[in-house]
Amino acid sequence: MPDSSPSPLDPINAYLRTELPLTHAMGIAVTSWDGHTVTLTAPLAPNMNHADTAFGGSIAALGILAGYTLLFLAMRDRQISNRLLIQKSEVDFLRPIDTELRATATAPDSPTLDTFLETLRRKRRARISLPSSIFTGQLLAATHTGLYIAFLY
Amino acid sequence: MPDSSPSPLDPINAYLRTELPLTHAMGIAVTSWDGHTVTLTAPLAPNMNHADTAFGGSIAALGILAGYTLLFLAMRDRQISNRLLIQKSEVDFLRPIDTELRATATAPDSPTLDTFLETLRRKRRARISLPSSIFTGQLLAATHTGLYIAFLY
Repeated sequence: MPDSSPSPLDPINAYLRTELPLTHAMGIAVTSWDGHTVTLTAPLAPNMNHADTAFGGSIAALGILAGYTLLFLAMRDRQISNRLLIQKSEVDFLRPIDTELRATATAPDSPTLDTFLETLRRKRRARISLPSSIFTGQLLAATHTGLYIAFLY
Repeated sequence: MPDSSPSPLDPINAYLRTELPLTHAMGIAVTSWDGHTVTLTAPLAPNMNHADTAFGGSIAALGILAGYTLLFLAMRDRQISNRLLIQKSEVDFLRPIDTELRATATAPDSPTLDTFLETLRRKRRARISLPSSIFTGQLLAATHTGLYIAFLY
């Protein structure tokens, strides 16, 4: 049964729907965040291609957004006001996706994250490379690597 | 004044709208094909991000689709029935896009294309790497490289 009670993920989902209309068209939802790993899902129908599997463009967009959302939430949890952009994106498509799309991104180890945050404080901008994974069911279907840049407000 | 007379691009645009619903949500149109270079456009509004410039996911999807459409049209012109998939996608984001998005992809030189088509005939599958460019106005805003695989029917 769908849970319609307020969720701590409501604000990020409202933000994405409002600020990134394509995420709404794709049906993307942030479904979990434990302070370390974020999970996003999207139904297949709006993201279908001519072979009735997921469009590569949808997979790339979901991979980009998984890394973006991870950084967004990690910085929000630390109350760091910033602006995030992507500089480079790479996707390897490993197998077709014929189910709901699910993407996860996990925070880097503490020294890497600490270096990023320290550089951001010192230089007011910092870059970080973040992998994300896109699954069909339990199977890895694509890997994404994004190079993101954050600017302090 | 918009030209509403039938265009030789109507079938490819109808195909994309039907088979790849996200291209419809993004407002993507194939606007020119001269047998060598294909141009696609998309309005900014449905592809906007939180900074009122184009979402990286939209840019990646448009870059993927430009190379895909180039191959699709080049093979259609040669009456080669095939299925196309993307295996790898790389995007370098060079500057923000605050206008309509425009992407172009150009057929590779004859020897490269001939080798690809000859491999496809012989092995019933062949891979090709294709660059595409995404512009804001006259300025290059992102470069995409896609590795595509074609299968003969």
